[in-house]
Amino acid sequence: MSFYLYSLFTNIREYFMQPWKTLSREILLQPDSGRFLTVENHQVQLSDGSIIQNWPWLITPDFVNVVVETEEGDFLCFRQTKYAVDGVTLAIVGGYLEPGEDPLAAAQREVLEETGYVADEWSALGGYAIDGNRGCGNGHLFLARGARYVRPIDADDLEEQTLIRLNRDELRAALMQGKFRVMPWSTAVAMALLKMEAE
Amino acid sequence: MSFYLYSLFTNIREYFMQPWKTLSREILLQPDSGRFLTVENHQVQLSDGSIIQNWPWLITPDFVNVVVETEEGDFLCFRQTKYAVDGVTLAIVGGYLEPGEDPLAAAQREVLEETGYVADEWSALGGYAIDGNRGCGNGHLFLARGARYVRPIDADDLEEQTLIRLNRDELRAALMQGKFRVMPWSTAVAMALLKMEAE
Repeated sequence: MSFYLYSLFTNIREYFMQPWKTLSREILLQPDSGRFLTVENHQVQLSDGSIIQNWPWLITPDFVNVVVETEEGDFLCFRQTKYAVDGVTLAIVGGYLEPGEDPLAAAQREVLEETGYVADEWSALGGYAIDGNRGCGNGHLFLARGARYVRPIDADDLEEQTLIRLNRDELRAALMQGKFRVMPWSTAVAMALLKMEAE
Repeated sequence: MSFYLYSLFTNIREYFMQPWKTLSREILLQPDSGRFLTVENHQVQLSDGSIIQNWPWLITPDFVNVVVETEEGDFLCFRQTKYAVDGVTLAIVGGYLEPGEDPLAAAQREVLEETGYVADEWSALGGYAIDGNRGCGNGHLFLARGARYVRPIDADDLEEQTLIRLNRDELRAALMQGKFRVMPWSTAVAMALLKMEAE
């Protein structure tokens, strides 16, 4: 089959690849006015027309994570605890979007708050659904390069953090050894390394 | 400061970097006997001793995702819809662990069910908490190489899927263009590319 015919076939098939439809939704749980979590039940119609009456759906705030490279070529990371992780993990800059905040603006705000650095060169590494089935927010990932120190750290994080600097080889080794133990952090570091290597 | 002193300092500091303590937990919501979701409220004590009375915690099943490379050097992917994503997305093999199932066994089962392939060369790409604050399950990522077709697809997925083959350059381009729109899929593809390039 020629590539043209294959593409045509794929396009036609995707045209008829119907997304599931949300027939109704109700809030099951919304602690603290939904500041950090709303749980909904969705009635969902699948592509074949069949209906699932009880499909749990999670709404949590969208967030950003940022891989920050300094002017000197070091990457700003943290050693810290995190509630979902046993022991200590490596981490990168990140935080929730404020209501209505643009992801890039949130990323720049978090870098300044958590590290005291500002950067001029920003690359988007994509926005991704955290849980393809239940939602659970979207993560917006960025690479910031050429970062320079401008003021002391002013973070509002609840965890203890120690800022550390890794060179690119150390960053890659830590990633491949599984030391970034929360998935969006590993995603951002991996995407950043692939992007920098492609340049 | 010498590297030895720095390491000593870091180790001492991490020794005193206390994880948060779960003082109590109660189930708030457990639809369908918790098959896909349990929502808990945790009373949490932070490192500084202060207490948060209401910390929502999500329990969803752990899952696997697998980047599968065939004997011919093609990567097995899908075009499909996914409830948390608008439109069509690229995807990779994946699914929930059965109760008590080992992640590698689940990964091998899912590859066979979803693609009809088996592979002999397996590499672990790490296990990660999905949401560092709220849990929401752990994802176990794998790279399977040298995969060969042994039997027809026998998938139990609810979504329509079209199996496609991408070469390594196409896989990388699709990743960097954000076409894998669910985070664990992008993570696995990025980690797999970094691992293959390091070899």
